Amino acid sequence: MTDYKINLIGAGNVATHLGMKLISSCQVLTVFSNKIINAQKLSDKLGSKPIDDLSNLNKDANLNIVAIKDSALPAIIDLLPKEIPTLITAGTFELKQIIEFENSGILYPLQTFTKDRPIDLSTVPFLIESKKSIFENEIINFVSEVFKAKSYKVSSEKRKFIHLSAVISCNFSNRLISEAKNILDKENLDYQILRPLILETVNKAFDMDPVLAQTGPAVRGDDNIIIQHLAMLDTNEMKEVYGLITNLISGRH
Amino acid sequence: MTDYKINLIGAGNVATHLGMKLISSCQVLTVFSNKIINAQKLSDKLGSKPIDDLSNLNKDANLNIVAIKDSALPAIIDLLPKEIPTLITAGTFELKQIIEFENSGILYPLQTFTKDRPIDLSTVPFLIESKKSIFENEIINFVSEVFKAKSYKVSSEKRKFIHLSAVISCNFSNRLISEAKNILDKENLDYQILRPLILETVNKAFDMDPVLAQTGPAVRGDDNIIIQHLAMLDTNEMKEVYGLITNLISGRH
Repeated sequence: MTDYKINLIGAGNVATHLGMKLISSCQVLTVFSNKIINAQKLSDKLGSKPIDDLSNLNKDANLNIVAIKDSALPAIIDLLPKEIPTLITAGTFELKQIIEFENSGILYPLQTFTKDRPIDLSTVPFLIESKKSIFENEIINFVSEVFKAKSYKVSSEKRKFIHLSAVISCNFSNRLISEAKNILDKENLDYQILRPLILETVNKAFDMDPVLAQTGPAVRGDDNIIIQHLAMLDTNEMKEVYGLITNLISGRH
Repeated sequence: MTDYKINLIGAGNVATHLGMKLISSCQVLTVFSNKIINAQKLSDKLGSKPIDDLSNLNKDANLNIVAIKDSALPAIIDLLPKEIPTLITAGTFELKQIIEFENSGILYPLQTFTKDRPIDLSTVPFLIESKKSIFENEIINFVSEVFKAKSYKVSSEKRKFIHLSAVISCNFSNRLISEAKNILDKENLDYQILRPLILETVNKAFDMDPVLAQTGPAVRGDDNIIIQHLAMLDTNEMKEVYGLITNLISGRH
């Protein structure tokens, strides 16, 4: 087992969750954020040094983990030392963008992270990738030893599709649950009443083919209900969403 | 405890699930369906008499339960005997449409039902409504005794909004999970890899405010990812859905 000394580049949701688990078996030397206050907050939790200038990264590290938003990655990666092994946590990011590193790879935890909500990382599928098979095996060991989790070797191209499917099924479903809550809030109804329904929906969608699990007015062809629902929605955007997904379900497109 | 003798009008998903539970403590006398083969199938399970003509409903029943699709309700209700207490299981249906009955009400189980998938009915919220408070109390007792479940008194108006919110959060999320599966199927990837992510998404959305739980490229403003995702989707319908929900999340509408 390697003695990991890690720099965390990023102080957001993913960096926070990985960092909190990392310190149970590794040292986190520095935490970088463009905003020093964010680096400070996470460093306080991890016993690390906060920095907002990448030239101050601790050179004793044997692993840099980069967990920042995708649009900021290229500029940050340019400034990182190429001799320290480096992992990028992004979902849609191509390995070829980091070839100038001696050892580099992808470590993408397929999960939704919110800072103050605990996650059992051992249940998270880690999508990994590296050009060098020796380093790829090191990543697998790292995930297994430190996060007690399972790795899945996935190419950049395939990982992009997994990320897309995750956005559509996870991020978008959460937005629809928000909308359901908005509707019930306006009627002074508690949206918790939907919890058993949505949990069963999700479990059913994975226990059987979600096409066969589809229920509701669109699949039954209850057009009078669909018309009423469209009239009840109070924004054009939600009417459009309702109409589009209803057509997808009923096959009328 | 009343000795319930029940006619089931309908032989679909809801009728099947209610029927299977009903026979543990009640008699189901007849099962009606427009298609006799469907009435026969469910009757075989319940030890009932299958009928496809409502004039053959067993008049000894002390409860008729109507579980058919909303668009077929008015025509069927017209043909039902008004002297037998009658419950309608529809989500979007107004109590005033059944006032000519001596005792009638709504019994709407807020759950997604698929025939061959078992459901623990005791976890299901039953939305109930009746004009007569004595009969309303009978419904509450019926739900408690027979289904071991909790009743919620909800007006027709409020129930419509609950139904709408259920369609948006449950039926539509299932369709999005189908879409995620389609994307992964095409890449020969197993969509089960999304299961921990989506379960956490749903649990998080109910443990905290789903607005605060929102993650993904839209809320981070990762526009380059959004552009890539739109290009990866291979139907205009899904591009439209992606664009609309992304705008809802980012507040750009």
